[in-house]
Amino acid sequence: MNRIYLDNAATTTLDPVVLDAMMPYLTTNFGNPSSIYSYGRESRLAIENARKAVARILNAHPAEIFFTSGGTESSNTAITASVRDLGCKHIISSPIEHHATLHTVEHLKHTGEAELSYVKIQPDGHVDMAHLEQLLSESKVKCLITLMHANNEVGNMIDIHAVGELAKKYNAIFHSDTVQTVGHFPFDLRNTYVHFITGAGHKFHGPKGVGMLYINENIKITPFIQGGSQERNMRAGTENLYGIVGFARALQLATDNYEKDSAYIKSLKMYMKEQLEKTVADVSFNGDVNGRSLYTVLNVSFPKTEKSEMILFNLDINNICASGGSACTSGADAGSHVIRAFAANPNRMAVRFSFSKINTKEEIDLAVAKLQELI
Amino acid sequence: MNRIYLDNAATTTLDPVVLDAMMPYLTTNFGNPSSIYSYGRESRLAIENARKAVARILNAHPAEIFFTSGGTESSNTAITASVRDLGCKHIISSPIEHHATLHTVEHLKHTGEAELSYVKIQPDGHVDMAHLEQLLSESKVKCLITLMHANNEVGNMIDIHAVGELAKKYNAIFHSDTVQTVGHFPFDLRNTYVHFITGAGHKFHGPKGVGMLYINENIKITPFIQGGSQERNMRAGTENLYGIVGFARALQLATDNYEKDSAYIKSLKMYMKEQLEKTVADVSFNGDVNGRSLYTVLNVSFPKTEKSEMILFNLDINNICASGGSACTSGADAGSHVIRAFAANPNRMAVRFSFSKINTKEEIDLAVAKLQELI
Ligand SMILES: Cc1ncc(COP(=O)(O)O)c(C=O)c1O
Ligand SMILES: Cc1ncc(COP(=O)(O)O)c(C=O)c1O
Repeated sequence: MNRIYLDNAATTTLDPVVLDAMMPYLTTNFGNPSSIYSYGRESRLAIENARKAVARILNAHPAEIFFTSGGTESSNTAITASVRDLGCKHIISSPIEHHATLHTVEHLKHTGEAELSYVKIQPDGHVDMAHLEQLLSESKVKCLITLMHANNEVGNMIDIHAVGELAKKYNAIFHSDTVQTVGHFPFDLRNTYVHFITGAGHKFHGPKGVGMLYINENIKITPFIQGGSQERNMRAGTENLYGIVGFARALQLATDNYEKDSAYIKSLKMYMKEQLEKTVADVSFNGDVNGRSLYTVLNVSFPKTEKSEMILFNLDINNICASGGSACTSGADAGSHVIRAFAANPNRMAVRFSFSKINTKEEIDLAVAKLQELI
Repeated sequence: MNRIYLDNAATTTLDPVVLDAMMPYLTTNFGNPSSIYSYGRESRLAIENARKAVARILNAHPAEIFFTSGGTESSNTAITASVRDLGCKHIISSPIEHHATLHTVEHLKHTGEAELSYVKIQPDGHVDMAHLEQLLSESKVKCLITLMHANNEVGNMIDIHAVGELAKKYNAIFHSDTVQTVGHFPFDLRNTYVHFITGAGHKFHGPKGVGMLYINENIKITPFIQGGSQERNMRAGTENLYGIVGFARALQLATDNYEKDSAYIKSLKMYMKEQLEKTVADVSFNGDVNGRSLYTVLNVSFPKTEKSEMILFNLDINNICASGGSACTSGADAGSHVIRAFAANPNRMAVRFSFSKINTKEEIDLAVAKLQELI
């Protein structure tokens, strides 16, 4: 059986069109973007054009877009700077954030640089907005709110405008980990109250090793990685030229085809959900699958049995790629910190399936048939 | 006139053989190295093979090699960890370090986390070893020595073993920025007293956006970028798979051809030096050009005249790529902090020419003829 790749929230294939855009910079155009001669300026131009393209798509200003090595570095930068540069002495986050956020906020708590509160998560996996407001209103110091836009394991999305309004009301800094939504969601940053958002190229058919940090023009931070004056003194290190070009090309492609791709991917998700409900006894879904949920992710919950405990292993044997939790902890973790944080019955098996524009209905049929057989 | 690229210390062209090695990972093999299914394990295997290759070449243990986004991130990590995790409360560095080091040590001084001393630089551009020992012997707290292996502007090299011996004697941590020497120098880390060294792929015909940090197995630090458990919990973020594969392939290639390439490149450097001495009046060279100096870099000093002040500009017009200082500050800086730190007469024009295996004697002849005309 050919491989069926249903783990697109972990990483996506590089689109050949994106690779084509990168190729000149992997071959002849290798000049250092910071060199002053014209050959270097050609590289600089490619980067500035990429920045403009990304800014236009997100409805931001080019001066608000910074390229980094990935989503993780971007979140580390935003959170650390909020505490060290912007005076946030109280971080409000949630227990279902990605480890790039959780480990950073826990570190800042550990060093005593900020206090840390976690907002409650409702049984449907959404942030308890009343509790968020309570935490903000009771805080005696300036707060950083760091809440992810879409959860990478269950797909739940926050209402970014509602959180932004609370941030505004309580004069808090707002960082949103948008790694799962940049390239999958139509942003309008000019009209969104948010100070930092993050992106990673490899989540939307762009290259690995490159990410983005949006920093609202009204705030001023110091660099996380220090050295040369790249990225207007905000992120030191020789630029990942082809990565940056690829990031912008992939985002452009995703944006051009957003209506079509998102409708198609959503239909795959819903089709899989229905087929599973029809064919697998006692199946359920983690998160707000029919509500505010990203169209790329379906988190399936199976009753715990001898068979279901082997499900990821057996899917792998059958060449079906899916995951138990987020990829970057899959080796380390026993179960998912996300599911544990809100599932009514954590004693079930959770499997994340996540889809892309290149999956097909036939693949879903094959995966569902296999699941039926394996469970 | 075809472009003559003599700025290989800024960045090098990606070797087509390296790109070939990267291509499978830019196309079909895109699995997330942290995913548990076999498809992800193929990516993990590629990374672990790259790590083993790098370790073998440097005569280190694979567990001592960590992949990062570049030389800058690697130095930030090593220096910050030495202060925050290893108890170094006194940093000894030099005024001719790269900004990745200088800005990091100045930041740590600024936050009050460490005191900072600069070792004296002799007129030939070498570190004053007696002063280094004096600083170490007078220090009442644990020291971090951070001294670059080869200077990127003038090519001067420290005696890494002599500095290591002092570090050992005074129980100091020793970090060496080896960005200009990894891929250009035969390391033997098992037999070198050093705790951290750094590398950047794009300096030896490998990819941009990927670097390396060697951490001696006897020390234990916490990650600089926090999040997922990648790189054995030492550097979070989805791995730059093709970058890592390319880094190792480029280092292998550089190592396989080291004897031949280094002799050839050195002959180009010496030929250019001789030709300039023959044809340009009052030319001299910054740094220890006939002594402990990297074979890739020639820093030429011209008398200051109306013509020489325009030299970089005119070289550019004539399609010759060279630089005034390090690339990453060339836009920002008026002159070089390196040359200023030790040159007897800083009122001259410094131009760095840096060579690679793909430069030719004919290119040197053309460049020298043009310089003669322009000066
Ligand atoms: C929600 C979320 N945040 C952050 C990250 C980290 O991104 P990266 O691994 O590309 O640094 C990921 C993916 O791994 C993610 O899904
Ligand atoms: C000596 C030295 N150290 C550090 C760096 C930084 O490396 P990178 O720009 O790849 O992060 C460079 C090159 O720019 C360098 O020449």
